[in-house]
Amino acid sequence: MATAVWSVDPRTGKRREEVATEATPAEVDQAVRAAHAARPALADRAVRAAFLRTAADLLDEAGERVVEASDAETALGPGRLTGELARTTYQLRAFADLVDEGAFLGVMIDRPDPDLKPIPRPDLRRYKVPIGVVAVYAASNFPLAFSVPGGDTASALAAGCPVVVKAHPDHPATSELCASVLRRAAERHGLPPGVVGLVHGFDAGVELVRHPLVAAAGFTGSVRGGRALFDAAAARPVPIPFHGELGSLNPVVVTEAAAEERAAEIGSGLAGSMTLGTGQFCVKPGLVLAPAGEAGDRLLDALTDAVSATDPGVLLDSRMRDNFVAGVRERLGLPEVESPVTPGGSGELAVSAGFLTVPAARLAEEGGKAGDGGTGGDGGNGGDGGEGHELLLEECFGPVTVVARYTGEDEVLAVLDRLPGNLTATVHVGEREAAEEDGTGARLLAGLTPLAGRLLVNGWPTGVAVAPAQHHGGPYPATTSTSTSVGATAVERWLRPVAYQNTPPALLPPELRDDNPLGLPRLVDGAPER
Amino acid sequence: MATAVWSVDPRTGKRREEVATEATPAEVDQAVRAAHAARPALADRAVRAAFLRTAADLLDEAGERVVEASDAETALGPGRLTGELARTTYQLRAFADLVDEGAFLGVMIDRPDPDLKPIPRPDLRRYKVPIGVVAVYAASNFPLAFSVPGGDTASALAAGCPVVVKAHPDHPATSELCASVLRRAAERHGLPPGVVGLVHGFDAGVELVRHPLVAAAGFTGSVRGGRALFDAAAARPVPIPFHGELGSLNPVVVTEAAAEERAAEIGSGLAGSMTLGTGQFCVKPGLVLAPAGEAGDRLLDALTDAVSATDPGVLLDSRMRDNFVAGVRERLGLPEVESPVTPGGSGELAVSAGFLTVPAARLAEEGGKAGDGGTGGDGGNGGDGGEGHELLLEECFGPVTVVARYTGEDEVLAVLDRLPGNLTATVHVGEREAAEEDGTGARLLAGLTPLAGRLLVNGWPTGVAVAPAQHHGGPYPATTSTSTSVGATAVERWLRPVAYQNTPPALLPPELRDDNPLGLPRLVDGAPER
Repeated sequence: MATAVWSVDPRTGKRREEVATEATPAEVDQAVRAAHAARPALADRAVRAAFLRTAADLLDEAGERVVEASDAETALGPGRLTGELARTTYQLRAFADLVDEGAFLGVMIDRPDPDLKPIPRPDLRRYKVPIGVVAVYAASNFPLAFSVPGGDTASALAAGCPVVVKAHPDHPATSELCASVLRRAAERHGLPPGVVGLVHGFDAGVELVRHPLVAAAGFTGSVRGGRALFDAAAARPVPIPFHGELGSLNPVVVTEAAAEERAAEIGSGLAGSMTLGTGQFCVKPGLVLAPAGEAGDRLLDALTDAVSATDPGVLLDSRMRDNFVAGVRERLGLPEVESPVTPGGSGELAVSAGFLTVPAARLAEEGGKAGDGGTGGDGGNGGDGGEGHELLLEECFGPVTVVARYTGEDEVLAVLDRLPGNLTATVHVGEREAAEEDGTGARLLAGLTPLAGRLLVNGWPTGVAVAPAQHHGGPYPATTSTSTSVGATAVERWLRPVAYQNTPPALLPPELRDDNPLGLPRLVDGAPER
Repeated sequence: MATAVWSVDPRTGKRREEVATEATPAEVDQAVRAAHAARPALADRAVRAAFLRTAADLLDEAGERVVEASDAETALGPGRLTGELARTTYQLRAFADLVDEGAFLGVMIDRPDPDLKPIPRPDLRRYKVPIGVVAVYAASNFPLAFSVPGGDTASALAAGCPVVVKAHPDHPATSELCASVLRRAAERHGLPPGVVGLVHGFDAGVELVRHPLVAAAGFTGSVRGGRALFDAAAARPVPIPFHGELGSLNPVVVTEAAAEERAAEIGSGLAGSMTLGTGQFCVKPGLVLAPAGEAGDRLLDALTDAVSATDPGVLLDSRMRDNFVAGVRERLGLPEVESPVTPGGSGELAVSAGFLTVPAARLAEEGGKAGDGGTGGDGGNGGDGGEGHELLLEECFGPVTVVARYTGEDEVLAVLDRLPGNLTATVHVGEREAAEEDGTGARLLAGLTPLAGRLLVNGWPTGVAVAPAQHHGGPYPATTSTSTSVGATAVERWLRPVAYQNTPPALLPPELRDDNPLGLPRLVDGAPER
């Protein structure tokens, strides 16, 4: 018996409609084989670019339906989802431009040099080819921009890789709708529907990452789920790259000077960032180091006012709500943890925002480092000497943050040293610190850099721009690789280099021919061709 | 009691001298901590480049001693080792040039655009920073170019990463000598000795990849050893990138036309390539698809003559000799496998070269795909329906190759479909095939491309040029990642991107400042800066 997949309304907790059935192993196999068979159809870059643009156009055309469908399943609200759709179609078009431009192919030509010492150099020509079928694991909190038509799909298609998406159970109807739009776009360009496969179900997700014809995977989700799939990818007879974005605390450090100069502005800015989307962002600031004393108190007053004034919201599903309520309760049970505004359940289905405080000294103590080890810190193997405060160094998904009050820069650095990897890290500095090359601001930024993939000064991490230089990734558990899932270089995840040695011109791919028929940017003998 | 590490003469099988002791866990920890502490010292690119050049100079100066020491332990011969040393110092200098040039930092600057739709763009500046301490696992068959002063070490130091090398037991004295030369070079530039650590011992190698402060690993060696370390890297609480080069069959296809036109040349060329260095190259052609019939017979005659005339040689160690002799024996026991020139033991310590033949149809049969699955093939999950011929699709280290005789292009493609990933794949084509865009040559090259990282036409895979466009890597088990261990892009393995958002100029790293004080090549708003 096939297991039904239901669309659920998080605002009522009620089932909306039966959308699909969970994919059996045979159905997963079929989707992967169809994707594999579609590879040659994606070989033409012009077709890929046109397909991505048509996909964006058709999604825009279907905009009202898409926003309605996704809001009904996620409760994220039409405003946010209209914005997310615009971001999604912008992203599809940005990758189309990147495909046209062609620098991502990394074409390099080394001309032969028979007289080179110590070894003669052959004719070598290198570029990047699509890695193969890509498995995409959709995120709960972005039903569009990190799901079926999202960045992983867009970048994989841009690279020339068909995708099989594992839908997130929080928005199966949106997933089906978006997949049908993408397939309609594919059809318009003569591409087989197999270029965008879609499967539902937990077991199907595991089957997918184990399938011999899947060549790489992209994932956005929890540490637990992502690590299990990462482990399965690594344990395959033929291991595959697994680019997973798992979890992030997104630490923020507020200097004494910053608090003195802008306590109210920082407090209310923090409230806005941590409660945005009911705290359901992977870049939500989850740990804030604020100074003890009067200026810090004023910051907390502003935070208290702003957070108290925030309306309760509905989380993506009831499991998340349960985890949020339990996570807050567990943290509140730790010694010296207080809650000026107590977060938690509000009514039957909603949750209210809040924040916790703790002396920073408690976080700097021995007692195990979240994530155990970490490439950025000092490698303590942890232990159990503490009182459980290391829990505060783990992400708690939802509208809560932890404010750790410190008494000096040493205490700040000691806490940073215990942090696992992050997507972002932020420092708020005073006016003078912002202008000093060797001052507190510079020292703190240097201390934060090993911990994160994106560093911010006097800003907030929520809001991830789709831009060429964006890096949305970071040391584990933020990401399971050194890659980004947003921005132009996200395409690099789905390519592998190939070099051709002494190959007759007629047998070379057009990308590598002397006359450069495709007009690609190239490095010749290691330098950009002019 | 510390376990002694002995240098052994493979020509006599006798111990030469006690060189070191196997590193205890505490000693591994010490080496890693010293490397970790040395990171800031490598931050200055000018110092790194100078260090790499001095290392090359000092190795050249010590050339005679280095060649003597490595020949005494490996029996590779002074000629080969003098060439390998020149390759090694060339490589160190090439990476110094790359450090000076700075394109590898991947500097990208996106200027802010507050009016951009759908989302305003902040000021974003991205470049790559060193990933941290790199563990390098030295290769048996390249005591210099893929060992202590080899490509992994050179590229990691170029990236700004200190290394801890796990010496190969086949050349511990050479390893100690080279490490001391590198440390002398480091000292001249005020760098601490911890920038190049060295440990001996199997257990030390496992400790190393598990150490919390090791951020990435490079490996060249066997499938079994490499996979065990890959698994350990993936199973860490904080997994790390493991760039391993494990094993490769390096298939060669000879078309009917090529055999008709150049049977003798191809036969003797193949003999030269497969016996070079007594067959101890990771790019040795291990499977040759040659046509059945008269032209193919002539090719085999030439191969027979050339291989028979090859002097026996000593392998790197007695375990390799035992594995080679046993591997040949096992393959010879398979139905329809013959040996026109039988490879095997020669006298007490040497081995003689030879080759096996088999009908290609035997390799195209069901019976399990070497490596189980493979991203390039059709994903058969294997089985045990065959008679064990899949063994012929596994690398046999030493001077032996398998010639599979085929009767048509379909049979060739059926065999290719069963192959695991490779470092290289080669096709020999006739004159007309080399000039036809849609002929047999083009079809075969297209069929080989999914299988390998470097493709050759009318050449031999041995001899890997150190060049910007080189790619020495390939689908698993050739490599455990999509990276290369030779060529300019080898440095990419040891870097991770970081983006700075809206950061005051004084707090930006000099690499990312508007006035470009370091004169780096950059992308601004996605396009090369002019």
